Amino acid sequence: MTALTTALAAPQVLERCRALVRPALEETVGRLHPWVGEMAGYAFGWCEAGGVPAAGSGGKGVRQALAVLGAEAAGAPGRAGVPAAVAVELVHTFSLLHDDIMDGDAARRGRPTVWKAYGTGPAVLAGDALFALAVETLAASPKGPEALRLLSAALGDLVRGQADDLLLAARPWTGPHRVRPGEYRATAEHKTGALLGCAAALGALLGGAPPAVVAALDRAGRHLGIAFQVVDDVLAIWGDPAVTGKPVLGDLRERKKTLPVLAALDGPSPAAGRLATLLESDADPAHVVTLIEEAGGRTAALAEARRHLAAVETALAGVPLEPAPEGELRSLLDFLVRRDL
Amino acid sequence: MTALTTALAAPQVLERCRALVRPALEETVGRLHPWVGEMAGYAFGWCEAGGVPAAGSGGKGVRQALAVLGAEAAGAPGRAGVPAAVAVELVHTFSLLHDDIMDGDAARRGRPTVWKAYGTGPAVLAGDALFALAVETLAASPKGPEALRLLSAALGDLVRGQADDLLLAARPWTGPHRVRPGEYRATAEHKTGALLGCAAALGALLGGAPPAVVAALDRAGRHLGIAFQVVDDVLAIWGDPAVTGKPVLGDLRERKKTLPVLAALDGPSPAAGRLATLLESDADPAHVVTLIEEAGGRTAALAEARRHLAAVETALAGVPLEPAPEGELRSLLDFLVRRDL
Repeated sequence: MTALTTALAAPQVLERCRALVRPALEETVGRLHPWVGEMAGYAFGWCEAGGVPAAGSGGKGVRQALAVLGAEAAGAPGRAGVPAAVAVELVHTFSLLHDDIMDGDAARRGRPTVWKAYGTGPAVLAGDALFALAVETLAASPKGPEALRLLSAALGDLVRGQADDLLLAARPWTGPHRVRPGEYRATAEHKTGALLGCAAALGALLGGAPPAVVAALDRAGRHLGIAFQVVDDVLAIWGDPAVTGKPVLGDLRERKKTLPVLAALDGPSPAAGRLATLLESDADPAHVVTLIEEAGGRTAALAEARRHLAAVETALAGVPLEPAPEGELRSLLDFLVRRDL
Repeated sequence: MTALTTALAAPQVLERCRALVRPALEETVGRLHPWVGEMAGYAFGWCEAGGVPAAGSGGKGVRQALAVLGAEAAGAPGRAGVPAAVAVELVHTFSLLHDDIMDGDAARRGRPTVWKAYGTGPAVLAGDALFALAVETLAASPKGPEALRLLSAALGDLVRGQADDLLLAARPWTGPHRVRPGEYRATAEHKTGALLGCAAALGALLGGAPPAVVAALDRAGRHLGIAFQVVDDVLAIWGDPAVTGKPVLGDLRERKKTLPVLAALDGPSPAAGRLATLLESDADPAHVVTLIEEAGGRTAALAEARRHLAAVETALAGVPLEPAPEGELRSLLDFLVRRDL
């Protein structure tokens, strides 16, 4: 598959899945208390604060697409995966709402976060409402118990990942209590991979897939999540801020424990020692970037992302999947991760 | 049953159920991320901030007792209701954690609330973790799908009740937008009744009760919740602060929309008009109390509580229940509500 067809295919796949899921998602959110429903609509990008309809589309909708493609890969029509898609989008939005409170983030996708626009208390409540709605959605589905086991495992991982993320921020760069690359990997799997894996696995489950296929798609989504997080962290340092939409070297200024830095510190290069000294002073982030690269942090991070992409391929290759949706899954992989490797 | 045996029985019932549920609840909470688990342990009253074990017992454990008695009333051993008991205690503690953030409450049961002790962000996370654990607990139970339908209905009601509670606080006492007694009733059913009903119904479900019994116990718990809330609001005005543990006339000072006031304003007495004028000025709460009583607010509230207790009796009488646990359910009713009527 050439880069050109890939680049065209993935946005169309995302758009097709968004269009398929949107009516059910709107109907589900419409069952909420009106005030809470407005906050949810704001979080999804459907309206402005106050309820005026908005043109913005919200996020890319990767999770709903994985759920729809999971069902199709199992040989079912995409609509079989819609309850899974609705549930994972509700859970994803719940986790964004609450994480923005915990991280004190004031803006998301160019707008004030929900807690900034509506207040902390109401934002906590809106997140809880979306969470409850996700459970209700799956409890009503024909594969309820197994679906809810998958969802609650992902929810447990999300909480674990967010707890570790908050704790890693307070840990030192060096010394016996320093953060190791393996801890970054576990946190990325829990925070990002678990829900991507759950999305694809839930879709496959509702599409009637056998357990081996459900497990393979879960595994694939988890590795995709780690690869995506690593690439995101690499782009936050070396990417074009006009494309990433993130402040220049923001992660380094906030002293986030991302893989390029951790891998550089963990490596054998003499630059690692100088990097450690620099990080413990209040050094200029631009100098830090040079040393991360010199100590092999960028190379190591990209190699790690490639290893997880290969693990995605292995997981997908090990089970029988319908070729057309499998191709679309691969085009999403290319779009989300590979084009930046 | 005399008042004396009633007063003795209920604390013993609560203690028996707490002892039956505690090992499973501790085992379940022990599966959490250690930091999140410490916050949960603090919320349950098992430890102090920092993790040192505490002697305090936390709450009365009404919800876990209803779940155990629900199973026993269906003819099963109490242990059949333990997963239900664990789930409802987790959900109850989750809702206290998040409600304390929303309401800005700094103290609960004589200690700082979780957000005061650990920070708002961590308290949001700990609540989410307990919520996820409740779903996981029921997803693993043999009656998973039906159990999760009951739980997610209660969760939806909890969110709806909390949203209405936050909105009612901002509404006026008089005029076309004033709060009506019926809105109070709906809010009390959602905030308090739904989870009490869910507790008893879930216990019965796991105890193998037929749908009519499950529905009757749900209904009984919802009416119990309203009666309990009304009595609590009456005691907050006319009760002994040494017994209630609440600040003198705190609800009136905070201008809470409780039934005694709403019923007084809604009544035909000439005192209602004077009460309205007083409430719209910054009047002394002690004067307000006299007018609420004169306008019939206390009498109307107690009559409302008695109506809901009668509805509990009707619900219990309409289905076959094992006599011993039914007697214990009634002793809980007396202990929680009737002794104050």
